[in-house]
Amino acid sequence: MNDLELWRELGCQLRVDAVRASAAAGSGHPTSSMSAADLMAVLLAKHLRYDFERPEDPGNDHLIFSKGHATPLLYAMYKAAGAIDDGELLGYRKRGSRLEGHPTPVLPWVDVATGSLGQGLPIGVGVALAGKRLDRLPYRVWVLTGDGELAEGSMWEAFEHAALEKLDNLVAILDINRLGQAGETMHGWDLDFHVGVARAAGWHAITLDGHDHEAIDRAYAQVAAAKGRPTAIVARTIKGSGVAAVADKEGRHGKPLDDAEAAIRELGGLRNLTVKVQKPKNRATPHRFEATGNLELPRWEVGGSEATRRAYAEALVTIGTANGEVVALDGDVGNSTYLELFEAALPERFFEMYIAEQQMAAAAIGLQVRGWKPFASTFAAFWSRAYDFLRMAAVSRADVRLMGSHAGVSIGEDGPSQMGLEDIASIRAVWGSTVLYPCDANQTARLTAAMVERQGIVYLRTTRGKTPVIYSPDDEFPIGGCRVLRRSGDDRVTLVGAGITVHEALEAYEELLADGIAARVVDLYSVKPIDGATLAAAARETGAFVTAEDHRPEGGLGEAVLAALADAGERPRVTRLAVRTVPGSATPDEQLADAGIDSAAIAAAARRLLEPANPGHPPGDALRASPAGSATLRG
Amino acid sequence: MNDLELWRELGCQLRVDAVRASAAAGSGHPTSSMSAADLMAVLLAKHLRYDFERPEDPGNDHLIFSKGHATPLLYAMYKAAGAIDDGELLGYRKRGSRLEGHPTPVLPWVDVATGSLGQGLPIGVGVALAGKRLDRLPYRVWVLTGDGELAEGSMWEAFEHAALEKLDNLVAILDINRLGQAGETMHGWDLDFHVGVARAAGWHAITLDGHDHEAIDRAYAQVAAAKGRPTAIVARTIKGSGVAAVADKEGRHGKPLDDAEAAIRELGGLRNLTVKVQKPKNRATPHRFEATGNLELPRWEVGGSEATRRAYAEALVTIGTANGEVVALDGDVGNSTYLELFEAALPERFFEMYIAEQQMAAAAIGLQVRGWKPFASTFAAFWSRAYDFLRMAAVSRADVRLMGSHAGVSIGEDGPSQMGLEDIASIRAVWGSTVLYPCDANQTARLTAAMVERQGIVYLRTTRGKTPVIYSPDDEFPIGGCRVLRRSGDDRVTLVGAGITVHEALEAYEELLADGIAARVVDLYSVKPIDGATLAAAARETGAFVTAEDHRPEGGLGEAVLAALADAGERPRVTRLAVRTVPGSATPDEQLADAGIDSAAIAAAARRLLEPANPGHPPGDALRASPAGSATLRG
Repeated sequence: MNDLELWRELGCQLRVDAVRASAAAGSGHPTSSMSAADLMAVLLAKHLRYDFERPEDPGNDHLIFSKGHATPLLYAMYKAAGAIDDGELLGYRKRGSRLEGHPTPVLPWVDVATGSLGQGLPIGVGVALAGKRLDRLPYRVWVLTGDGELAEGSMWEAFEHAALEKLDNLVAILDINRLGQAGETMHGWDLDFHVGVARAAGWHAITLDGHDHEAIDRAYAQVAAAKGRPTAIVARTIKGSGVAAVADKEGRHGKPLDDAEAAIRELGGLRNLTVKVQKPKNRATPHRFEATGNLELPRWEVGGSEATRRAYAEALVTIGTANGEVVALDGDVGNSTYLELFEAALPERFFEMYIAEQQMAAAAIGLQVRGWKPFASTFAAFWSRAYDFLRMAAVSRADVRLMGSHAGVSIGEDGPSQMGLEDIASIRAVWGSTVLYPCDANQTARLTAAMVERQGIVYLRTTRGKTPVIYSPDDEFPIGGCRVLRRSGDDRVTLVGAGITVHEALEAYEELLADGIAARVVDLYSVKPIDGATLAAAARETGAFVTAEDHRPEGGLGEAVLAALADAGERPRVTRLAVRTVPGSATPDEQLADAGIDSAAIAAAARRLLEPANPGHPPGDALRASPAGSATLRG
Repeated sequence: MNDLELWRELGCQLRVDAVRASAAAGSGHPTSSMSAADLMAVLLAKHLRYDFERPEDPGNDHLIFSKGHATPLLYAMYKAAGAIDDGELLGYRKRGSRLEGHPTPVLPWVDVATGSLGQGLPIGVGVALAGKRLDRLPYRVWVLTGDGELAEGSMWEAFEHAALEKLDNLVAILDINRLGQAGETMHGWDLDFHVGVARAAGWHAITLDGHDHEAIDRAYAQVAAAKGRPTAIVARTIKGSGVAAVADKEGRHGKPLDDAEAAIRELGGLRNLTVKVQKPKNRATPHRFEATGNLELPRWEVGGSEATRRAYAEALVTIGTANGEVVALDGDVGNSTYLELFEAALPERFFEMYIAEQQMAAAAIGLQVRGWKPFASTFAAFWSRAYDFLRMAAVSRADVRLMGSHAGVSIGEDGPSQMGLEDIASIRAVWGSTVLYPCDANQTARLTAAMVERQGIVYLRTTRGKTPVIYSPDDEFPIGGCRVLRRSGDDRVTLVGAGITVHEALEAYEELLADGIAARVVDLYSVKPIDGATLAAAARETGAFVTAEDHRPEGGLGEAVLAALADAGERPRVTRLAVRTVPGSATPDEQLADAGIDSAAIAAAARRLLEPANPGHPPGDALRASPAGSATLRG
């Protein structure tokens, strides 16, 4: 068989196997697979360099299906490459199979989970960045995109960043099959539109017939010539190509073919070609950065004050100095997060992602595919921009470290658009996540260091203003622990805070003590995982809790405490102080008071809980009355 | 004074007032204001049509500061228009002032809150869509954007959609001042880049010197000629223009000037021009759609079955038929959400937003600015893509209705990328939100109808598969209520579910009853607000709770129940069943079993709670052992 014959046969085999796998599963996306079958056949047979027996080989190319629903095609490729057998292919989408409906890294050849559209290309930018700037290896990143997903702004972010970073190791293969899920895409078969966009961003762009194997081969061969520019291969394809009953038909998205047997016959029947996929040319050794191996965290004197956002950045510089795998990403707020310190100290490992939080998250996910340890930082509020990427990062079993600064109302005058007030709730809900919230500089430094080896989405929340340094630089803060800051034999109430509210709780403790009320004070710096044992002991020993958080009442610190005690033997009454209105502009102290989370509010809540005549307040909402002001009215 | 003199003087006045307001506040963004002062001076003095005394006038133009941090400029414009006085201007950013750090609709002339960058233009697309397709009025939407924020993919979504919808009533004024917050933007003063992007999207684009008043005037005058195309005015400007100490200097973002007095002198001193802003030409009467005024919701027979996603869509058709203000938005999943029914029935009020959830949310926010009642629908999972827009919509006091379909593991084979598992947590945490989660078709129809007049972010969560119809079409389901489905005098445990788990709880009830255990069953269809009184009664009367949710354990149904009972007199032991692993592919029933949220798991949890020897389980995590399987392992 010559090359052309092989490509044709392989294209048909991939279609047949996609049809068979979907038919066996009773679900799946065969038509979206068939449009790209020829594009992938030529890639697999000739241009991809990948050792399926050594998926961890640093020299391997990366193949990312941004159109993650085309798993019937992806898995048919794995079969054609000899990586899985036919029996496994036909177990597609069945319980226990690693061939899931959308790809996940449960499979060793899958870098990242896709299936939420518009993510594969920005993550590919991250992998390509690792290749260029960190690994410094010649591997290529091939990303197969759909056309419907090009409507996601995150795809534009990827186009823009890839060009800016001159990622000529990145190839986007645009499968323009005209049809989305519900109907025609915005631009149908207007290839010129997509070429125009890619070129406006600064890419090399080629159009072709996505079913012309020789044209595809020539296009892939051109990639190497596009020095300093990523390549977009804009392919006109037919959804369901090869089977007349579904080819270019609406209403055929995400469904097995009605008559799979007939379709297989039309495609020329079963084949069992195995392709010898090229391996990486040479033994590849990734670049390694010089590092001391010796972590010397910055130290702050007890009694001083420092902003936790700054402590994070200073700590990260020392962590990066000690560990050459650590890299940092910023979203044009490096002078607010102090990430500019990292940029100055370790410029080769600093990535400016500008105001594009989706691409920042995606780049972090891409960098960790290659084993780098990314720390990405922006305002806590703006991680909400990348929430779908964080959710999917968990499905990718990615290890990414995030810092969210300027949390809560305590930022003061800038107002609610800049206040992270939903970050704990949203990130806690991500599978396998860790949520840390330090209250002083030394604790921040320790927790930042602990993030390096922590798996999953690890989130550190920091505060804008300076807070008192209350811990020694030698104190330790294990993830999953908490700190009991005040306790005595006759504590009658437990005050739980984290971050800025720890200091408010400590002040409330003094106020209460002056009234003869002994309180326990807990610094819940590890919101997830949470120290259930210490909280349960406090519940047994003190009987009532006040939680205070610079965050919305839903899904935050207070609910985390309730969840930790939900099934405990003693379940205390808990008054949850949190931000229940829309703040306006005001000073940080005014904001804390208006939100009802300052020391006075904590002390008052504790007193109310201890009133003997008080049989139980109505839940939280009764507290709403307190702050108000014109800015809290509905417009 | 001739026009040119007026524009020059006004440009200086706007700068001076921006400097003064920021100086008085001790914070703010004067330099970002100064770059756009001339652009805004010409707009205010000649091209904007706006009646400041009648901000509700439907004929008014709309002015949106996508670069929301430029409030010193915006408020200086309000002063120049005679809408606020100098005293109020100097109260900028102080507690209680409606002149907040970033604009919010606490001010009557502000349509939407901005300050999270990249949102004003996509929201402007929504307002312009209302003008073209709904109001059918000739008002213009002027959006001032920064250059840094052009890196947000949501801005590209806006460019693409505005062109597609031929929004020649939309003008984006791009203030290209070269400098972001932390340093130079991606493209600096490369105006050609931005023009290339705008033209690739299909816009009319003009470059000019943003400090040349006559060029600005000519550009604004050209807008009317660009029939069928939105206009981008790409202006080269100087950040901090007019004051040498800050002009085009890095490190001056977001700070008052060091020497405000000297700057004011350099700008020619205080002025007190009042500009007579043009009012809308004619009395404008918005188009109204024919509607019956008579709501006849669809009805399902008890004992049948239907998917709640379909019931939502069928109900929405009847609601739209009755109420001409109701409009619907889809994100290329109209054949999955059944929004295609609305498209077929009421095509003029249907908006296809393609796979661009940020733009879909933004368009909904923009449409409600003009009083329309948008319902936007996609998979629950994909609302995570627009989370920052939802957070900000709350600050905008926007009334938007969202439907998230395909919630939870019960979707089956498609796997975790398509499963909404964090939507309750994230949307509950948004201020003023409502979270509804119906379990049958009739309940869905009633709740969908209740969404129409509900304020704030109102979210309805629906299920992919068919569920039994258990309620009569005449049953009522007030928001904030719940339904006690099973109860007796000797209930020993309360089972709380919502959506699909209601049916699992009902089966568990039967299982327990067979064992002689009476259980109460609560359908918590209104997760927020929550019916604390009914839950508290169940706590007093049954003493133990099992909650079951097709969602992550954090911030969902279980924690909502705990929060409702946190401060109650009786605080039951609560076992929270939720999705604690990463699901793979499997059938819906297998998924529910693997996640430990099916009837068997609920009954088992209830039995464990009632074992006399059982003093309290460790919190939730002990339950993790059950499902597992290869797909749940970390990769």
